[in-house]
This record gives sequence, structure tokens and C-alpha cells, in this order.
Amino acid sequence: MRYSRMLGRASYEVPHDADSVNAKLLTQGGFIDKVAAGIYNHLPLGLRVLQNINDIIREEMNFVQGQELLMPALHPIELWKQTGRDKTMDDIFYKTRASGDRDFVFGPSHEEVVTPLVAKYVRSYKDLPMSVYQLQTKFRDEPRAKSGLLRGREFGMKDMYSFHTSTEDLDAYYEEVKAAYLRVYERCGLRAYVVKAAGGVFTDQYTHEFSVVTPAGEDTILVCDACKTAENSEIAKSMDRCETCGGPVKKEKAIEAGNIFKLGTKFSEPCNLHFTDKDGQRKLVVMGCYGIGNTRMVGTIVEASHDDKGIIWPESVAPYRVHLIALAGKDPVVAQRAEQLYLELLKAHVEVLFDDRDDSAGKKFTDADLIGLPIRIVVSARTLEKESVEWKRRSESEGAMVLLQDVLPKLIA
Amino acid sequence: MRYSRMLGRASYEVPHDADSVNAKLLTQGGFIDKVAAGIYNHLPLGLRVLQNINDIIREEMNFVQGQELLMPALHPIELWKQTGRDKTMDDIFYKTRASGDRDFVFGPSHEEVVTPLVAKYVRSYKDLPMSVYQLQTKFRDEPRAKSGLLRGREFGMKDMYSFHTSTEDLDAYYEEVKAAYLRVYERCGLRAYVVKAAGGVFTDQYTHEFSVVTPAGEDTILVCDACKTAENSEIAKSMDRCETCGGPVKKEKAIEAGNIFKLGTKFSEPCNLHFTDKDGQRKLVVMGCYGIGNTRMVGTIVEASHDDKGIIWPESVAPYRVHLIALAGKDPVVAQRAEQLYLELLKAHVEVLFDDRDDSAGKKFTDADLIGLPIRIVVSARTLEKESVEWKRRSESEGAMVLLQDVLPKLIA
Repeated sequence: MRYSRMLGRASYEVPHDADSVNAKLLTQGGFIDKVAAGIYNHLPLGLRVLQNINDIIREEMNFVQGQELLMPALHPIELWKQTGRDKTMDDIFYKTRASGDRDFVFGPSHEEVVTPLVAKYVRSYKDLPMSVYQLQTKFRDEPRAKSGLLRGREFGMKDMYSFHTSTEDLDAYYEEVKAAYLRVYERCGLRAYVVKAAGGVFTDQYTHEFSVVTPAGEDTILVCDACKTAENSEIAKSMDRCETCGGPVKKEKAIEAGNIFKLGTKFSEPCNLHFTDKDGQRKLVVMGCYGIGNTRMVGTIVEASHDDKGIIWPESVAPYRVHLIALAGKDPVVAQRAEQLYLELLKAHVEVLFDDRDDSAGKKFTDADLIGLPIRIVVSARTLEKESVEWKRRSESEGAMVLLQDVLPKLIA
Repeated sequence: MRYSRMLGRASYEVPHDADSVNAKLLTQGGFIDKVAAGIYNHLPLGLRVLQNINDIIREEMNFVQGQELLMPALHPIELWKQTGRDKTMDDIFYKTRASGDRDFVFGPSHEEVVTPLVAKYVRSYKDLPMSVYQLQTKFRDEPRAKSGLLRGREFGMKDMYSFHTSTEDLDAYYEEVKAAYLRVYERCGLRAYVVKAAGGVFTDQYTHEFSVVTPAGEDTILVCDACKTAENSEIAKSMDRCETCGGPVKKEKAIEAGNIFKLGTKFSEPCNLHFTDKDGQRKLVVMGCYGIGNTRMVGTIVEASHDDKGIIWPESVAPYRVHLIALAGKDPVVAQRAEQLYLELLKAHVEVLFDDRDDSAGKKFTDADLIGLPIRIVVSARTLEKESVEWKRRSESEGAMVLLQDVLPKLIA
């Protein structure tokens, strides 16, 4: 992609209402654009990050036999009356009255849609276990939307729902999904801790959250470095030694980056989701649910991976791998050699953002640091004297000269 | 995928409210499930078709330099007041009053979001032309939602918006997109005609629609077979000879499968989208917009490609390529050989749906015809006598025996 033609250019105006590092850097870098509090445009650079995250999530959910589907955002209010959550979640609903005077809510979650859906198809123990997920947009009227992509009113989510014949089967699957979630965070360059949490309106039981430690976190967790476990400080208020290994714990701020719930029969009972067991008995299906906010993940990665110059994208989710900079000035040979390298990289399917603008070296370097692609390659009169480019990783402070002929082999090695 | 574990199984109950072939076949085949009028769940089989269509659309939009982005569904009403469409489109809005007493609409279209967005970044003629698109969900409160996926209240759409320095530049780009659209339909197995249409609330000018001829069509078009052109009968009421070649025309029913508009400065003026031209003059940006309903496309393909037994998916959009049927009965050897072939195909990345259920041959064949995958492969005691499978294309009435050892080479040839 030629940076000169891209929608969403780097800017150094500090957004007046940016209340967090991710809001500031993502806005300045041209990844997102605020439409209203908690509501954002995902610009081309930002959408590529989101799509990379989605691909990782899909792979890991498919690996645990999740079947992808897509449920609607518009829910007849009657669905929510089944479970009584039309009342308990009323505060956060976006509601609308449609033609024919029918009332709808825009889904803040999808248990009330997925449970009756599965009830249409599940008859026997032979149909279970089953697990389905979607990448969908959720709508929640958060009175105080804040922190950029961390707490949105319209936001992306992967929500998975699993269906089982017994709590034992749910328990085993729950552990599989827990492991899949940890792989998602690891692949996105995040170190996440599993912590116990209270389920709020979703469930009466304790559930698990995945917490990423960063100064911007809203939660306080107690981390034990010795055994790599953590607890939520709301639950484990008085804990000063680790429950698992007895080691010392320390308080840290963390961002909640996902959560998983054992729902049991909380939804299958009101939604009438039964199955016939081997013994011929009609029983309630046992359910679990598993959520990762994918747009929130974009913000979390920025909170966890930046410096004072800008974002440092992990290679797995970076919108492009290479930031190619031409410092051509008035020299047509430099411009032509940079263009030639750009076309070579494109041909080899290297994901490359080409800063082909007529701008100063200073501006281009500052923008590259802000945008944060993993590898910066500079072509200038000086580097071409040695038939070379300057090659620098965003995560390192020093670059090195690399022969032009070695650039492509080094990238595809 | 093992059919025994899939959410959304074939059923022969005729949906009581299915008013069209696509609603009936997609519901019975387990592709979609109705939540409310015009609002559907896309089940795993149906979502795969949609994702295949999306991939084709993305490739063709990227080819005409479209940049993918993602705008929100929740729009502050103030955006729509800019253009006056808060009044002209009021009938079809889903509206909501959010916390802080702010009014929002759920986007039935995105001109009011994209134009102010582009205005933040476009300064000079050097920033133009530019073209951006999204695959997003639209919300329109159609009083009479009907015809399955053809007229939804919540539906998927690819909407692209282009920005130009002059009408000449728009005109040239418009033709490029027209060609890209025709490639999308062709790749989805559809024969589409370009017809002139009135733009309704979107634009004052004539625009173009893409029409697919099928008996379920809502529109009447006049088609000239000699030169492969068509006209909308509302516009060309009295036409009895083709305007292009003078040949005879005939009336046919057609489904509108996309439309493109020359917006001119209709939106750039109220949204204040200007650029500075080469001559230093401040001018209004000239816009075009281009829509394809992707969920509607799923329904259109079914309307255009089915027989009395079920759907006939074009290979490019089929949810799986192969429907593998094991007729094992009580014979463990047949079951084992079918399983072995299934695993071989998976390993070779052949997209295969494996009917591993304990059901009759008749039921399995009827389901396969309903679901409509391109290639049906049957493994039974009879075929194994000849170390073979029965291989039949959905679009043909007769199958043939193919040696087991030739199945994979034939599929990956």
C-alpha cells in the first residue's frame, strides 16, 4: 500500500478527549477515528490489525471444534423476556420500536438467541457436545464509555457457546477453551493471567477472566511471579501469599481481555433446551460461554506494547510487516530504486506500507515510529552508495545496513 | 466437517411463512434460521457461503484500489441532520435514545459517516482519487420484509464510496467498478445485466442496477438477447426494440443484485468535503457509491440456481466442495473405508462435508440434493466391491464409478 493514497494519515494533534494511551496512539497513527463516545471508525490500518486478531481467534476456536455462525444484532424483546434479562440488563440496552409497534433490543450478548436456536436442532445425547461461535458486533449503552477501544458502546466480540450432556463434560471442555484462550493471547503478543472473577448478571457462579498487566488497567490483580498465577483483588482481598505455591504476591493493574463462564442450566432451563440421554431420560443441556472482545484486544495490545514514540505491533497482528521509506528528495534514482524494491516486495507477497510521500526524513521516521510496523527499511542516496538499505526493527534502537540483494531473502527466510 | 455434529440439519418441514424459493430451501437445508421477519441467523453452512461471496467481493474491490475499513452501525442523529436525510429516510430508521438523552439511528447506509471521515484527511488534489469500502450490517425497518434473504431488515452489504477531483474522473472510475461488479456476479455463477434505474432517496440522477433474471424477481426488465443489454421497464416503458442494436426485446422478471450511483456533490456539499486543486482553488469533491447486498446475494444465487430437489451451488461459493456419503449400514469395513477417505481429503485441504450419520441411503441422498454441494461421493459395500466410489455432480443426473485411488488426484487436478 502506498501511504500517500491511504485513508487515515499520522497526525500529531493530541485528540482533546483521548483518555488513554490506546485512544491517543491509535487516533494519531490513523488506525481509528472517533464518531461518538465509545463508537469508532476502524480505518484501513486499524481494520487490518482487527482482521489479523480475528484470524488468530478463528483458528483457535476451530481447533476446539467451534463452529462459526452469525446471529443478528436485532433481537425481539420477547427473547429477553424468556430469561428475565429484559429487566436485569435494561440499563445497557439500546432499544427501538419498529414498524408494527414491535420492540427490539440491539444484542449486548447472544445467549437468548443461541439457546432457542440450538434447541431447534438438538434432540439426543448423540447431538452433543456442540460448540458454536461468532464474530459479531455488540451494543451496550455504557453510561461512561472510555479508554478508547477498551470500553466501547459498539464493539466487536467473539462469543462462543458450548452445549453438553453433563457438568463433567462442560468442565473438561472449559479447560480446553481456557488453553485455547491462552494461545490466542500468546499469539497476539500478550501475557495473560487467568483469574477468578464474579460473573455479574451473566451467571451466579464464579467465572474466569483473562488479565493483561498494564498501567492502564481498570482492575487490580494479585500476581505471583513464582508460579505465574493471579487472583482478582476483589475476591482475594486479604491474600498476601500465593494460594498455589505460597510465594509472595504483588498488586498490579490489569486489563480484562476475555472471560469464560460455566452457565450450567441458567439459560437452557428458561429456553427449554433439553436432550434425551442414553437412559431415555429428558434432561437439561449444560452450557458454557466464552467471550473475547476483539476490538478491545486492539486497544489492549497498544496499552501493553508501546514506547514514548508510538506503537510497537507484535508481528502476528501488525497491519503490515514492513514500513518502506524512500528518502528521495529531488533524486529520481533514489525514488526509482525504492519503487523497484516496493514492487519486488509486493510480488513476493510481503505486506509492505510504502511511504512514497514528498516529505522530510524526520517526518517519515517519526510517523514510522508512531505507526509501529515491525521492520523499517530506508532507501536513500546514502544507503544506495553501498547498494544497501537501512534495516531497523521497531523494537530495537539501532539499525544496520543490508545489501539490496539480501532484503527479499532476509524477509522470506 | 462431520454432518452428525453440525448445527443446522436438513429438514423437510416446509417453513409455514416461507414466501420464496430461497427462504424455503435455505431454511430446509440448514443454512439460515429465521429470528423475526427479515432477521436471520446464518448457520454454519450459510455463513460459509456468505464468507465465500465476501472473499470474491473483497478481491474485486481491492482490484479497483478500494481500501477496506469498518464504520459503526450506531450513528448520532446529528450526522443525518447535516444532509436532511434524517427526514427523508425517517420511515426506515431504527432509532434509539441512549444514555444522556442522545438520539441515534442504526445505519441504513453510510454516506453521512464516510463523507465527514474523508473530509478529515483529504486536503489536496494529491490525496485524490480515493475509494473506500466496508462489509457491514445495515438496518432498515422495511414494513414488509419478505422473500427470505432478498429483503431483510438486518442485512449484510458491501458499500464502497469513491472520491474524485472531477466528474470525468468519477465517470472513468464508475466504469471500472461496473466491470468489477460484473466480475463479482460472474464469479458467483450469476448472469447479471446492467440496467438504468432511478436513484430514489440516494441520488437525483439516474443510476445503474445489476439485475439477475429469475422468476422470483420483483422487477421487470426488458432484455435484448442479441446484444446482451437490458433496460428497466419502469424507465423504458414503451420500448419494443433494443436501443443499442435495434433487435427484439423481451420482458423478464429480475432480482436487483447491486447498484451504483454517481452522487456528484450531493453529500460533499452538506458535509463540507473540499479539496484544493492544482490551480489553488477550493473545490467540492465529486463522489460515487457502489452497493452489493452480500446476504441478498446468497438468496439470489439460490433463486437462480436450484431444481425441484434443492439448491445447486456454483463451485465458487459452495459451503463445501464435496458431500461424502458413507452407506455403511452395519458393515464396519465400509464405515472404516469412508472414514479413511474423509481423513485423506481433509489432509489434502479438500473442503468436505461427511455424512457419517446412521441413516438410510434415501435420506442421505435427499439431503445431499437439498444442500446442493457440487460433488457427491458415495462409499458403499457395492462401490467397494470395485475398489471404487460413486461420483456424481449435483448439476448432472448421472454418476459414475471412480477408483478410490483416483478420487484425490481427480479432486486436486
